[in-house]
Amino acid sequence: MILPKFEPNEGVLSGETADIYFTRTVEILRHEGLNPVATMEVFASRAGILCGMEEVKALLARVLPEANHEVWALAEGEAMSAKEVVLRITAPYQSYGLYETAIGGTLAHCSGWATAARECVEAARGIPVISFGARHVHPSVAGIMDYSAIIGGCVGCSSAAGARLTGTEPAGTMPHALIIIMGDTVKATIAFDKHMPPEVSRVSLVDTFKDEAEESLRVAQALGDKLHSVRLDTPGERGRVTIDLVKEVRARLDLAGFKHVKIFVSGGISLERIKQFVEEEAPVDGFGIGSYISGAKPIDFTADLHEIESKPIAKRGRIPGITPNPRLKRIM
Amino acid sequence: MILPKFEPNEGVLSGETADIYFTRTVEILRHEGLNPVATMEVFASRAGILCGMEEVKALLARVLPEANHEVWALAEGEAMSAKEVVLRITAPYQSYGLYETAIGGTLAHCSGWATAARECVEAARGIPVISFGARHVHPSVAGIMDYSAIIGGCVGCSSAAGARLTGTEPAGTMPHALIIIMGDTVKATIAFDKHMPPEVSRVSLVDTFKDEAEESLRVAQALGDKLHSVRLDTPGERGRVTIDLVKEVRARLDLAGFKHVKIFVSGGISLERIKQFVEEEAPVDGFGIGSYISGAKPIDFTADLHEIESKPIAKRGRIPGITPNPRLKRIM
Amino acid sequence: MILPKFEPNEGVLSGETADIYFTRTVEILRHEGLNPVATMEVFASRAGILCGMEEVKALLARVLPEANHEVWALAEGEAMSAKEVVLRITAPYQSYGLYETAIGGTLAHCSGWATAARECVEAARGIPVISFGARHVHPSVAGIMDYSAIIGGCVGCSSAAGARLTGTEPAGTMPHALIIIMGDTVKATIAFDKHMPPEVSRVSLVDTFKDEAEESLRVAQALGDKLHSVRLDTPGERGRVTIDLVKEVRARLDLAGFKHVKIFVSGGISLERIKQFVEEEAPVDGFGIGSYISGAKPIDFTADLHEIESKPIAKRGRIPGITPNPRLKRIM
Amino acid sequence: MILPKFEPNEGVLSGETADIYFTRTVEILRHEGLNPVATMEVFASRAGILCGMEEVKALLARVLPEANHEVWALAEGEAMSAKEVVLRITAPYQSYGLYETAIGGTLAHCSGWATAARECVEAARGIPVISFGARHVHPSVAGIMDYSAIIGGCVGCSSAAGARLTGTEPAGTMPHALIIIMGDTVKATIAFDKHMPPEVSRVSLVDTFKDEAEESLRVAQALGDKLHSVRLDTPGERGRVTIDLVKEVRARLDLAGFKHVKIFVSGGISLERIKQFVEEEAPVDGFGIGSYISGAKPIDFTADLHEIESKPIAKRGRIPGITPNPRLKRIM
Amino acid sequence: MILPKFEPNEGVLSGETADIYFTRTVEILRHEGLNPVATMEVFASRAGILCGMEEVKALLARVLPEANHEVWALAEGEAMSAKEVVLRITAPYQSYGLYETAIGGTLAHCSGWATAARECVEAARGIPVISFGARHVHPSVAGIMDYSAIIGGCVGCSSAAGARLTGTEPAGTMPHALIIIMGDTVKATIAFDKHMPPEVSRVSLVDTFKDEAEESLRVAQALGDKLHSVRLDTPGERGRVTIDLVKEVRARLDLAGFKHVKIFVSGGISLERIKQFVEEEAPVDGFGIGSYISGAKPIDFTADLHEIESKPIAKRGRIPGITPNPRLKRIM
Amino acid sequence: MILPKFEPNEGVLSGETADIYFTRTVEILRHEGLNPVATMEVFASRAGILCGMEEVKALLARVLPEANHEVWALAEGEAMSAKEVVLRITAPYQSYGLYETAIGGTLAHCSGWATAARECVEAARGIPVISFGARHVHPSVAGIMDYSAIIGGCVGCSSAAGARLTGTEPAGTMPHALIIIMGDTVKATIAFDKHMPPEVSRVSLVDTFKDEAEESLRVAQALGDKLHSVRLDTPGERGRVTIDLVKEVRARLDLAGFKHVKIFVSGGISLERIKQFVEEEAPVDGFGIGSYISGAKPIDFTADLHEIESKPIAKRGRIPGITPNPRLKRIM
Repeated sequence: MILPKFEPNEGVLSGETADIYFTRTVEILRHEGLNPVATMEVFASRAGILCGMEEVKALLARVLPEANHEVWALAEGEAMSAKEVVLRITAPYQSYGLYETAIGGTLAHCSGWATAARECVEAARGIPVISFGARHVHPSVAGIMDYSAIIGGCVGCSSAAGARLTGTEPAGTMPHALIIIMGDTVKATIAFDKHMPPEVSRVSLVDTFKDEAEESLRVAQALGDKLHSVRLDTPGERGRVTIDLVKEVRARLDLAGFKHVKIFVSGGISLERIKQFVEEEAPVDGFGIGSYISGAKPIDFTADLHEIESKPIAKRGRIPGITPNPRLKRIM
Repeated sequence: MILPKFEPNEGVLSGETADIYFTRTVEILRHEGLNPVATMEVFASRAGILCGMEEVKALLARVLPEANHEVWALAEGEAMSAKEVVLRITAPYQSYGLYETAIGGTLAHCSGWATAARECVEAARGIPVISFGARHVHPSVAGIMDYSAIIGGCVGCSSAAGARLTGTEPAGTMPHALIIIMGDTVKATIAFDKHMPPEVSRVSLVDTFKDEAEESLRVAQALGDKLHSVRLDTPGERGRVTIDLVKEVRARLDLAGFKHVKIFVSGGISLERIKQFVEEEAPVDGFGIGSYISGAKPIDFTADLHEIESKPIAKRGRIPGITPNPRLKRIM
Repeated sequence: MILPKFEPNEGVLSGETADIYFTRTVEILRHEGLNPVATMEVFASRAGILCGMEEVKALLARVLPEANHEVWALAEGEAMSAKEVVLRITAPYQSYGLYETAIGGTLAHCSGWATAARECVEAARGIPVISFGARHVHPSVAGIMDYSAIIGGCVGCSSAAGARLTGTEPAGTMPHALIIIMGDTVKATIAFDKHMPPEVSRVSLVDTFKDEAEESLRVAQALGDKLHSVRLDTPGERGRVTIDLVKEVRARLDLAGFKHVKIFVSGGISLERIKQFVEEEAPVDGFGIGSYISGAKPIDFTADLHEIESKPIAKRGRIPGITPNPRLKRIM
Repeated sequence: MILPKFEPNEGVLSGETADIYFTRTVEILRHEGLNPVATMEVFASRAGILCGMEEVKALLARVLPEANHEVWALAEGEAMSAKEVVLRITAPYQSYGLYETAIGGTLAHCSGWATAARECVEAARGIPVISFGARHVHPSVAGIMDYSAIIGGCVGCSSAAGARLTGTEPAGTMPHALIIIMGDTVKATIAFDKHMPPEVSRVSLVDTFKDEAEESLRVAQALGDKLHSVRLDTPGERGRVTIDLVKEVRARLDLAGFKHVKIFVSGGISLERIKQFVEEEAPVDGFGIGSYISGAKPIDFTADLHEIESKPIAKRGRIPGITPNPRLKRIM
Repeated sequence: MILPKFEPNEGVLSGETADIYFTRTVEILRHEGLNPVATMEVFASRAGILCGMEEVKALLARVLPEANHEVWALAEGEAMSAKEVVLRITAPYQSYGLYETAIGGTLAHCSGWATAARECVEAARGIPVISFGARHVHPSVAGIMDYSAIIGGCVGCSSAAGARLTGTEPAGTMPHALIIIMGDTVKATIAFDKHMPPEVSRVSLVDTFKDEAEESLRVAQALGDKLHSVRLDTPGERGRVTIDLVKEVRARLDLAGFKHVKIFVSGGISLERIKQFVEEEAPVDGFGIGSYISGAKPIDFTADLHEIESKPIAKRGRIPGITPNPRLKRIM
Repeated sequence: MILPKFEPNEGVLSGETADIYFTRTVEILRHEGLNPVATMEVFASRAGILCGMEEVKALLARVLPEANHEVWALAEGEAMSAKEVVLRITAPYQSYGLYETAIGGTLAHCSGWATAARECVEAARGIPVISFGARHVHPSVAGIMDYSAIIGGCVGCSSAAGARLTGTEPAGTMPHALIIIMGDTVKATIAFDKHMPPEVSRVSLVDTFKDEAEESLRVAQALGDKLHSVRLDTPGERGRVTIDLVKEVRARLDLAGFKHVKIFVSGGISLERIKQFVEEEAPVDGFGIGSYISGAKPIDFTADLHEIESKPIAKRGRIPGITPNPRLKRIM
């Protein structure tokens, strides 16, 4: 995947989204005529997949002075350890002090999403994982959440915004709403097939009105070779998608000659459930993951000053001076 | 608090942030000439404080047809039960179907934040709680996160964006960076006092270089009556702010005649820790809460069609027809 | 319920089912010319519902000498405490010594079943409970197991043998086998209605081929007022019968005008699950319980001699002499 | 061991012990003129030792038509996995449909007992295990329970019925009753020796009146070389048989020159306690196990139709068609 | 009980048992000519029964200057809370600084023992408790340990040293050694009765060679009315003294007409076991407690300076100045 | 280390500290003219480090008759298993019977302390451990407790008494009291340096008034090369000494050029905390352990007679005769 070109957000640049005390700090320092070259280091509170660094880089490129700066970092998507320094900025403090909130927040939220995605992808042992969680986050971050999920290893995502950022095709089948409005799964599937361009896979959602196994056979009979997959999304009220249901649908499709039809599973799929499906060899061809990824807890990042004008310093609790980390690369 | 006037986001209106299958569904229905009046109900997966409804209302106001619609909802900030219907829309489906993702995501994220804030506020038993978590979320949602925290009961927040949305003054003291650059807490506190307008409270951060109790006395001696509070933010490496530390600083300030100086506590404050502080009667005058609120898990919302052209219908696992909820008010 | 008249089993009378050492003991005592009047007391290792006493009484009636005996006992179906004496026999030892095995085993097995049944019945808070566990015990005890379940409070049982012992009508619907052979649930239900006498309730099993809600409506439409109930027996592979499924089927039946059709639930129903159904007010009209009752652990009983020729005696660990228990009634 | 010849029980053949709905199903099918060749498969809900198959075979031999049937099964005493098919019957349904209850119940109860016995035998690491549990089950199954225990690996059992079925000598010592009536352990042991035929081992029960170690020496002195073993059966009220008691009795017997006298242990012996005795090398020469085996929970079996007239079919939750299992052997 | 007069130990007075740094501190202060009036406060780390204060008082009486001192304290045997100040000394520091180790250690060890004793006494609900733990502590503290146990509520103790300190008669029966040497419990009991003065209770130990119940009857028959009690001390290898054993021995003694013989229980008696005996109404007439009391963990005490020459001061973590505690009484 | 020469305590020799029943037993035996050669064996209830044997040996040397005795034992400081015989005395019973209490108590208390010390030493993986617990035990055992800790592996102790017994230098730094009286840590450290002989290490306690890191640098600057170590003893109210604090102090000392200054850690250090410090590689140069060692539970020892005049005998629960243990050495 080619990394997108991020544009710094206006609210960030203006300090609108910053903690107010950074705004005030910069103001005080200006009044005091203080603008030392300061080195700030940023580390994560727990291990995970680093994400958001590209967006941070775009911000720094816009605000740091042309000369007199040095930025070292790990790359987007790299694994990071707990407390490992992932970003080190050396530059006149007034140029970047205001952006500590945005830098921390971007890395926190994006790394939280990417890390949860990576967990799912590793648990799925090669079965493709798609991010379906846009519906569980504020739309202002739906795209960047899906971007982070794909950095974490998902093969696709459901939002157009995420797809655009990652240069992928948005992934999706059909919602229950389409089937309810059309009144029948087969009818809805045929309409879908009729009106969608050929590059969109024909994936039919089979738990709306009838038994999943019965409906799978009905749509397979209706679309034949054109049917790409069925999606099982059985709600919790009905016991969710079970491992045995996947095996049974697979067996019934095979028995009826529809070996080409794949089975896609969604609906409350957590890391734990992926592991169970894989462990018990359920014949799943794809997982759609919602809130396990999109609702992942952000990974808190901490930023500390470690040098002022090349002299080691630190607040209590931290070690003064540069923290050695040979994994860091100079990026600016 | 006067609720702000939200403006629907361009990405939302264009469908850019929507799950792609809603875009496709609307397209298919248009081709099929189907646009029935449909009733969609939205409920939360767990109990909490409803938030985001104002933003959803602004969106619906923009997209629903002038006539032929009915919207019922609970109000911003109301408590909701698990599975309680909080929003019911009856309108031609094509007018709003595309926005199911945005509606769910807005309510999910905002209600998650507001609910966590409410937990803290209730645990604090009257001690003011301030949202300090902007640094742990993506800057695109920093403002709305702080807004949600205040809907949940926080008295203030650290981001200018959140403050603007809620009509409050942004809250903040000084960061460690200011003190490190100025080299001494007293010096930094004096500079703060010199350059900040009088309406900004003089709150000094006292754990940067010296023992918190010693530093508290030093800044109190330096600023005298002008000092509003000290903030204790002892890092985890040094055992965090303990209940006994607060009691000791209070005792030492009192003993030295600085009874007017308040004590503000921050740094990894969780619900559990608030309860302990309150339980053991630590003399705290304010809590600053970061990731417990900002990193709260969104509350998943589910949207279902329950009537098509006034006829009860539902997918498997749901009850067809309108779900009675006398708490709903008609809002459009 | 009128208690049945039990007939002592031939194997029991002959000593065939006894522990061999009782056979030998009686033989030794005969050789030694010893046949003292001995008092044996029997108690249970844990609390529960006493069952099997009627069968024990029938045995004693057959073997005790006409004169010179006294038997005190609690009644069939009474609650008993742990270690409470439930039976006391005073008679020449040779007349009953051989039957200690049978007495203990009858009480143990029957009380185990009755106690489990009572737990279910109490948890069901008035919803009828039927014993469906014949398939999980050896056929030699199927009848007595069902008898014990009814002593414990079940309103009916599935085996003819149990029904005969208790003077009830055997309870049952239709098995999956009938539907599979007839190829369709509606067809099977109609055949059932056609060939069964009118006093047999028309209960249709609705989880064989199609979605339970869909099938419920189909059989209701087919049989109309004649349909007494539907039985939900969803297998574990499909998530078992959930509380929400019962609510949904109820709602869909009501919506379609079939308020008279009851809902009967079976399939892996344990005490814990009954409690959940009742707690969450699932509209269940009857529970069919299998192995929770039929597989209940027998309650171990212990028999001890406490007097020989009216003189207190006991083995180590027991108190010599009669154990007072005012709840005992003289029965022989 | 030579497997016994079982005779089908009259109650089973008549359908008296069957679930009533099978009786009704066969009646309906007769009325409808339906008697297809159906394939039924039977599997266990959890892993264990298969037992009861010989009795099932005897039943099928009696009811299946002479031609037109095929029966495949695992053998009596074989280990089976959870959900493994252990029996497959292909025959006209009316010939065997009525017996599903008896087949399942026989396998369930017998396999439950055999599996528990096997656990004990494996834990005992070569120390003989004897089934002493007849007193804890209904006498109608005392013999078949002991038979199952021996199929599971026990070397003997206490009931004459079980011994007859398995061609073993019934095992037993003397009960507390004999000693209490005779008034002294030594006196009882001498009487036992005097009246019992030589092939019955002289095993004296030594915990009735005096300290076990003292009594062991007394009976050893009284019987000398004729004493085969002592049995320790200390009741729970006195701390049960402890590992140290066995070691002490062994040491005291050895010290007094009675190295030939074996030690047999009984009284609330569970799997866990066998493991402890073996782990700590208690010099036990035999274990007598009661309710751990006789009170073992039956292993639920499930029977499903998988083919009708050679066409794959199955209810929801099961895979249509024959389930491959190369371990099955054709037995009829 | 009249409190004994303690004599300060030579090793304490010389500083031999002190932490070396107190010796050095006093030496440094002498060199520096510093001997300010200092106030030291002492508190316990957890709640309990204060003990050792009399011994501390004796030490202070010996070392404090005649004038110019003030000592406030809780009294021997009083309940104290966690962190409550139990002792406050105001005097020239050089006079008492050396003794901080001895003061803390005396209170710690004695309060630990007294607190454990109190727990047993409270659990015993009026049944007398005797301290039997001398054998589990170094003989140098056997007496003071038993003294502390009696301060905590025990009615007696086994060591002569403890009895002398508390003005009680030493309590004891006979050891297993006496019985083993004399070869028989009855013989030993008769010898005991023959040679002991009349004021010593005749208590026979009944678990050495024979069954406890049998032996109890034998000694009761031998001594008749002179027998005061039997002591049950069954070892762990034989299942310890069980509740049922006590009940059985009581019943057998009563049945044989020895209602006057009391039952005394010892052997691994913990707080938990006392509670069980009391809960289940075992007819115990006295408990002998060993290591539960004698091996009780000392309660750590902390001593802090809070004033120097009447000026509040304290190390970090403590509140400067006198800690108010209205429960303290001035004792010197 | 050369083992000290112990002198039997007067209270022990006189029987003052003995359980009274041993005094009585010896008196009875004298009256009866019984003084058989008896063999007593002593074993511990749990595994550990044997300690106290030297003191026991000194006692036996004083009381056993010149001829006619044999004593076998494990050596001071050896590891012992649970229930392993560690001491075997064969001699006329009257010569040593009175001392069973003292022998058991000495071994119990000393082995408890030595065992806890050994646990700490092993967990510290080569980092020196010093016993600092004198303040938590009665002064009568302060010396022997420290002796036992050193037998267990500690390199030093804080009490002069313990140091004398073990031929070590007493270990200690300065208490908070010295610093509080002198008013400043640097001042106190300079006074310490001025008045203490050169062989006493200059170790400064750095948590009294100021931040530990700041204070460490201040004392290092004041004493320069003469400063041996700083001691961190942060109280629980301030979060105790954390692993990160040690790392930070190390880093700040190194950065300022004081690499020679060692770091000594104390304050509530338990086995668990030592393991964490070692696991996370905190740069600790020494641990001071208080109540984990001094408050260790004594290890109960049991003494039993196993032979009388060379004839095997034992109470119930024990094996008569000598218990073989090839590890025992004859010591007398």
